[in-house]
Amino acid sequence: MNNLDAFFNPTNIAIVGASANPEKAGYTILSNLVSIGYPKKVFPIHASEKEILGFPCYPKLAAVPDRIEMVVLVMPSKFIYEVMEDLEQRMREKGDVRVIVCAAADYAETKKEEGIRRQACLMETARRCGIRVMGPNCIGVIDNVNRVDTTFVETLLPKESRGKRGGISFISQSGSVAASLLMIGASQPAPISLNKFVSIGNMADVDFIDLLNYFEEDPDTKVIGIYMEGYADGARLIKNMARIARKKPIVVFKVGRSEIGAEAANSHTGSLAGADQVYSAAFRQYGVIQVDTIEELMDVMQAFNSCVLPQDERTFVLTQAGGPGIYCTDCIEAGGRLKMPVVSQDTKEALRSCLLSMASVCSPEGYADITASATVAHHVDSLRIVLEDSSVSNVIFITVLPTFLPREELANGLVQLLKGEGWMQKKPVYVCVMAGNYALPACRILEANGIRTYDTPRSCVRTAERLTEYASFLRRKGDSPIE
Amino acid sequence: MNNLDAFFNPTNIAIVGASANPEKAGYTILSNLVSIGYPKKVFPIHASEKEILGFPCYPKLAAVPDRIEMVVLVMPSKFIYEVMEDLEQRMREKGDVRVIVCAAADYAETKKEEGIRRQACLMETARRCGIRVMGPNCIGVIDNVNRVDTTFVETLLPKESRGKRGGISFISQSGSVAASLLMIGASQPAPISLNKFVSIGNMADVDFIDLLNYFEEDPDTKVIGIYMEGYADGARLIKNMARIARKKPIVVFKVGRSEIGAEAANSHTGSLAGADQVYSAAFRQYGVIQVDTIEELMDVMQAFNSCVLPQDERTFVLTQAGGPGIYCTDCIEAGGRLKMPVVSQDTKEALRSCLLSMASVCSPEGYADITASATVAHHVDSLRIVLEDSSVSNVIFITVLPTFLPREELANGLVQLLKGEGWMQKKPVYVCVMAGNYALPACRILEANGIRTYDTPRSCVRTAERLTEYASFLRRKGDSPIE
Repeated sequence: MNNLDAFFNPTNIAIVGASANPEKAGYTILSNLVSIGYPKKVFPIHASEKEILGFPCYPKLAAVPDRIEMVVLVMPSKFIYEVMEDLEQRMREKGDVRVIVCAAADYAETKKEEGIRRQACLMETARRCGIRVMGPNCIGVIDNVNRVDTTFVETLLPKESRGKRGGISFISQSGSVAASLLMIGASQPAPISLNKFVSIGNMADVDFIDLLNYFEEDPDTKVIGIYMEGYADGARLIKNMARIARKKPIVVFKVGRSEIGAEAANSHTGSLAGADQVYSAAFRQYGVIQVDTIEELMDVMQAFNSCVLPQDERTFVLTQAGGPGIYCTDCIEAGGRLKMPVVSQDTKEALRSCLLSMASVCSPEGYADITASATVAHHVDSLRIVLEDSSVSNVIFITVLPTFLPREELANGLVQLLKGEGWMQKKPVYVCVMAGNYALPACRILEANGIRTYDTPRSCVRTAERLTEYASFLRRKGDSPIE
Repeated sequence: MNNLDAFFNPTNIAIVGASANPEKAGYTILSNLVSIGYPKKVFPIHASEKEILGFPCYPKLAAVPDRIEMVVLVMPSKFIYEVMEDLEQRMREKGDVRVIVCAAADYAETKKEEGIRRQACLMETARRCGIRVMGPNCIGVIDNVNRVDTTFVETLLPKESRGKRGGISFISQSGSVAASLLMIGASQPAPISLNKFVSIGNMADVDFIDLLNYFEEDPDTKVIGIYMEGYADGARLIKNMARIARKKPIVVFKVGRSEIGAEAANSHTGSLAGADQVYSAAFRQYGVIQVDTIEELMDVMQAFNSCVLPQDERTFVLTQAGGPGIYCTDCIEAGGRLKMPVVSQDTKEALRSCLLSMASVCSPEGYADITASATVAHHVDSLRIVLEDSSVSNVIFITVLPTFLPREELANGLVQLLKGEGWMQKKPVYVCVMAGNYALPACRILEANGIRTYDTPRSCVRTAERLTEYASFLRRKGDSPIE
């Protein structure tokens, strides 16, 4: 049993700093554990309350009669000394606690003497007791497989999406980026389904490498996402990433890339951002996928989770809207990584006979404009024809949803084609719907069926490029030893 | 009186192809005219219906007793011949029609003989009668000053936002981009407030230059936005843009930039996309602002509409969230156009005494991290201190809205500072709120008060760069003759 297991599947959790006040983090952690449906026991530690949210309270860790594997610390950091005494007493008597999630801030990241002293107290106690620590200065851990949520973020995630698991496990060095990702992810047409989610904070103990190695062996983790500012031992980090990237895609959004950014990163988590070019070159060499923006991070992680890897870079652009289609070809040419294929004469003829006479077929090659008058059948049938052509490895499919096209019917037609007829398992299709909230009913149907939707042709192109690059990396290097 | 006036303020409108069927464009145009509150008369032309949506119908244009200045054509294009006969009869008898908006497609853009013949019939009749034509193959015209909406797009724009005017007038060569912009604009926290909106379609008559010149003289138009694929006489277009750009910002999103894209553009509207580098160089030389993505188009147009122009490129980054703040400085350094200023010792001391002890002030220079524990007062007061420093010309203000920060209270505090204390009139402030739908209540308050919000630090940086460049262009070239 890996000694990080208890972060993701603890048998019972105690919350030090639990609160009955809904405006405190020590309350939200409890309510998030209720919302996600954590199936084991929760023990709020509170000096005077009898119960909070139906959970019976105890005045000290040492007083809890049941087994506790995880302790979450959310009390003000100045109380760390007495909490650690309480913990040591419990460990002498029961010896059950295996992990601490220290969500509170005001530890060593302040670079002030007192904060450093508090973190030292936490870590010395934990080491003596053989307890692993996440944080301090983090927002917590989520495991959607085992229904654990120790965060104190209100994401507006709908009830039915709580605990819904996908294949993405995410590690964030910044608590605010972690929170932002949860909130933005919850706002998608179908909220992002994470597998595990870890805010690592100050990395006083558990760090990038520990978690990467854990996710490497985790059968539920299909894609690893990372937000990073810096890491002391870059060479060791790269070595671990290089090994893992041959098994699962690692998508990295790294900041502190500029000189000023590196200085800001140093002020922030005290981490050296490190020579950016060295990281980028190593990422490229070892098949780690680096993204440049937060939107790309979301897009690319989810595409790896939901799409099959493409055979190669040949990408057909099928569009219902001329302008966005032209823009898409601009993006493809500017990126220089995808190629628009020449499909067979049979495919061209099939498209022409399926579509309206005003449709534009394969001028340029690898491109068809089915026009704003296209019906649902025109959309679905032309997409099938394109997918059936052996020279097409990826499809970017663009629609603005004109007013008189039945949105839900189109979405259901696409689901039937891509999921029902199994195309999702054969070729990646990037569906771009450019219609704001008007598109929501359609996007919800698509995303609920695992078909991610994109806001712009550029997002489709950037994402398709990353999947293509990774697929190409695996073909070239997947079986050779790491240099 | 300019002969385009009747497109934006027609005295009475006739709709040829009006329909009582809510699934037809000829119905949606009527319902959009109702929704926007068009104050004059609307005459549906219909062979048999007595009335539609309360408007009395007439079987022919020639039969309408009142004055008609605008005729909207939305019937299938094959009927153009008989409709033009009807129109000629009316013009012989009343001579009142001044403009046609030809929304229907299947004219010359098909490049087929019959479509070309239909467009020729339309244009010959219009020229004989002295009528100006928008289209064909366009989605219509909106004027939010005079409450005209001849589009057939369902945008989900809330009732209270219909007819709400801003300073942006927009021209789109693509109907689908036009529709997409309306739908995406309607989905913003506070829907985009356009002044005028024109889908120009095939440009059989009214074209880019006509509209640019009209918007040049239009006192209600503060910013001109353009989506373009190509134009036959690029030199003349640039000459007109160069003159106007010294009076009002022109923001251009041009596609068909790549070779493949140019070929697709040619298939689409039959327009030659033209040498992209020539356009880009001319835009740069003459102060026309070129954007690279649809998101940037939205951001930059709205920033020009809502912000004062900055004095120069000095930009302070004030962030509540470390990670996004670092990322913002990366974007600034990568862009190379903004500079982070060294503020005075007084400003630094004022920030330190206003903020929590764990806040990071001016390390790096021009940067402050107020931390996730910052209260509303910390946010607002630190922003005021930064704005008061004379070395600061722009501020990028980032927050992820932590769970326990009252969202509406923060938004109201910012409105009081930026609007109430008049800072909006002095320096541009770019407010980035990275919290998905959780942020909506706050963003709605800010945007309803004219303070645009951005999704990512990168959007703030890209937008600030464009405003800075334009301000710099005006200082350098604004009064000198055009070379």
